[in-house]
Amino acid sequence: MPTILVKSGGEAAMPEWQRYFADYAPGLDVRWWDDASVAPEAVDFVLAWDPEPGRIATLPNLRAIFGAGAGVDLITADPALPKHVPLMRMGPAGATQRMGEFVCWAVLSLLKDARRVALNQAQAKWKFLDPEHTAPQAPVGIMGLGNMGSRAAAMLQGLGFPVRGWSRSRKDLPGVRCFVGAEEFDAFLSETRILVCLLPATSETRGILSAPLFAKLPHGAGLVNVGRGSHQNLDDIMAALDSGRLCGAVLDVFETEPLPAESPIWAHPRAIVTPHMASLPSRRERAEYVAQAIADLAAGRPLANLYDHARGY
Amino acid sequence: MPTILVKSGGEAAMPEWQRYFADYAPGLDVRWWDDASVAPEAVDFVLAWDPEPGRIATLPNLRAIFGAGAGVDLITADPALPKHVPLMRMGPAGATQRMGEFVCWAVLSLLKDARRVALNQAQAKWKFLDPEHTAPQAPVGIMGLGNMGSRAAAMLQGLGFPVRGWSRSRKDLPGVRCFVGAEEFDAFLSETRILVCLLPATSETRGILSAPLFAKLPHGAGLVNVGRGSHQNLDDIMAALDSGRLCGAVLDVFETEPLPAESPIWAHPRAIVTPHMASLPSRRERAEYVAQAIADLAAGRPLANLYDHARGY
Ligand SMILES: NC(=O)c1ccc[n+]([C@@H]2O[C@H](COP(=O)([O-])OP(=O)(O)OC[C@H]3O[C@@H](n4cnc5c(N)ncnc54)[C@H](OP(=O)(O)O)[C@@H]3O)[C@@H](O)[C@H]2O)c1
Ligand SMILES: NC(=O)c1ccc[n+]([C@@H]2O[C@H](COP(=O)([O-])OP(=O)(O)OC[C@H]3O[C@@H](n4cnc5c(N)ncnc54)[C@H](OP(=O)(O)O)[C@@H]3O)[C@@H](O)[C@H]2O)c1
Repeated sequence: MPTILVKSGGEAAMPEWQRYFADYAPGLDVRWWDDASVAPEAVDFVLAWDPEPGRIATLPNLRAIFGAGAGVDLITADPALPKHVPLMRMGPAGATQRMGEFVCWAVLSLLKDARRVALNQAQAKWKFLDPEHTAPQAPVGIMGLGNMGSRAAAMLQGLGFPVRGWSRSRKDLPGVRCFVGAEEFDAFLSETRILVCLLPATSETRGILSAPLFAKLPHGAGLVNVGRGSHQNLDDIMAALDSGRLCGAVLDVFETEPLPAESPIWAHPRAIVTPHMASLPSRRERAEYVAQAIADLAAGRPLANLYDHARGY
Repeated sequence: MPTILVKSGGEAAMPEWQRYFADYAPGLDVRWWDDASVAPEAVDFVLAWDPEPGRIATLPNLRAIFGAGAGVDLITADPALPKHVPLMRMGPAGATQRMGEFVCWAVLSLLKDARRVALNQAQAKWKFLDPEHTAPQAPVGIMGLGNMGSRAAAMLQGLGFPVRGWSRSRKDLPGVRCFVGAEEFDAFLSETRILVCLLPATSETRGILSAPLFAKLPHGAGLVNVGRGSHQNLDDIMAALDSGRLCGAVLDVFETEPLPAESPIWAHPRAIVTPHMASLPSRRERAEYVAQAIADLAAGRPLANLYDHARGY
């Protein structure tokens, strides 16, 4: 019987994983990551978010690695990771829908100054804030036009936002003005009133959300980071919020997660902090997705959402 | 020269009104409501949100009354209001766009449990909340399918929400399951996971958002009230939030505005309170809209958005 080791949600989540896999891949033996009774040679698959470095390399007969999220940076950070084993990112249909919903909520929260409204509520203060823009006057710029970014682009347009996007290779998305690479980056930024980061964590994108970038945005632009914490320089973000260069930020990801209680960003009056919630598919959705991939693999069908070691995402 | 009396935003707003009207209706004499130098016979138009009862009846040559908002309930509350003078509700294009944006933000805030996320932020508490539904699993029911409701219905569908609507007369809106009148009200409610009120304030709709209605919604439904404060029974809402019958509420309108600081709803952990901000067009947009209506009137063209005294909205 093929065996999968799971490290996502802790050992406590195992009964749930086993229940869902029983529905979608009845022949699969679903075991906890640290189950000592499983011989390394017996492991066919792993499903993990943050495997400890070196561990995956000890599994000689591994046929595929499934990341528990759309970003697999905590897996590829392992220097001993076997590169010949296919590594697949999580990508069920529900995940892009959730991300689109979250991005729309975050962008609308900036447009409506929801953070200020919430702080006024906390003080029982009735204070009308004249909203400066409506969506058609607030172009949204999306960094990263992959699974997540392209769906968010479509949903934002339905709300009336003009949308532009930026990626590594040329894209053609309905209604979206698309920019490519370093050469077109400044032009992309210059007309973006609300910037959304949906990039993967790579060496090229590390620290991209920092003062030099903010200086290229129109004064008072808004920022949504739903990519990775490594994309952002939190000190620069706070300085830009304080100076008014950025009008507000919605941050869902952080270099250290959980974000420590001491972080000053928690209390910043212009920042909305959310706990990496933008798009985690349910366990049921993920089990179904992995079961389908295992079936595709067995049938020799090509896998979607494969990680490319050369590109770094 | 035709004269308009303005009571919206207080006397302090008059220079702004005069500047905008100068752009859109250069021949119009724009005066503050309490300007004693204007003879009652000289007044052709009024633009007001909450005129004191009896005052409009003292203007013998009035040709039209312009409400400063989409709801004119504070004007029609005047028992002496002359019914032969056309009363026009505010309806610039930007107003329905703003309302649609606000409704989408409010509905997404309920879907994502944004109130709880904000309370966790206030305590610097990182706590992942598994979102139960995505938009396709959370049908939104809109009470009132007029200018505002029909636009909100279209925008919500773009986000992936199934949308149903309820109105007095039969409607045919793309993608929307439409229900009509008292007979179909329970069927409309029974499948609504997030209820949005966009009704006008009339004797029929008064107090409609109360315990008997909540009992007909699926357990744990969400509520958005962007209609009028008179639609809601705040005690019933708080009781329903406490019992879990309602999972959350976004309330933008209140019987008394500004909402008094003593109101317990301000601090309720499941309520988002906003200061009647869902859709107030800017003064510039409103001046342009009124100027156009005055030109239509002069040219004998029909007026849009006329109040119907028989219907009560
Ligand atoms: N907060 C959350 O809950 C959450 C959930 C899911 C995902 N995420 C984040 O979202 C990221 C994107 O997910 P996805 O599924 O959309 O990934 P994806 O399909 O791989 O798309 C990545 C996009 O980024 C672009 N890109 C990569 N490197 C670039 C560079 N150096 N310059 C310009 N563009 C570059 C790619 O360009 P090409 O199209 O030209 O290749 C592509 O359009 C994930 O990696 C993860 O960090 C966060
Ligand atoms: N919070 C804010 O900032 C804000 C801003 C603007 C407006 N509003 C509120 O939104 C309301 C709606 O504005 P609107 O411009 O969309 O008005 P509208 O065009 O007159 O539409 C009203 C809708 O309500 C329906 N309706 C009225 N009485 C009903 C009843 N007894 N039972 C069932 N349906 C009934 C009407 O049905 P029929 O189509 O069959 O006539 C119509 O579809 C305003 O009156 C105001 O209270 C709030």
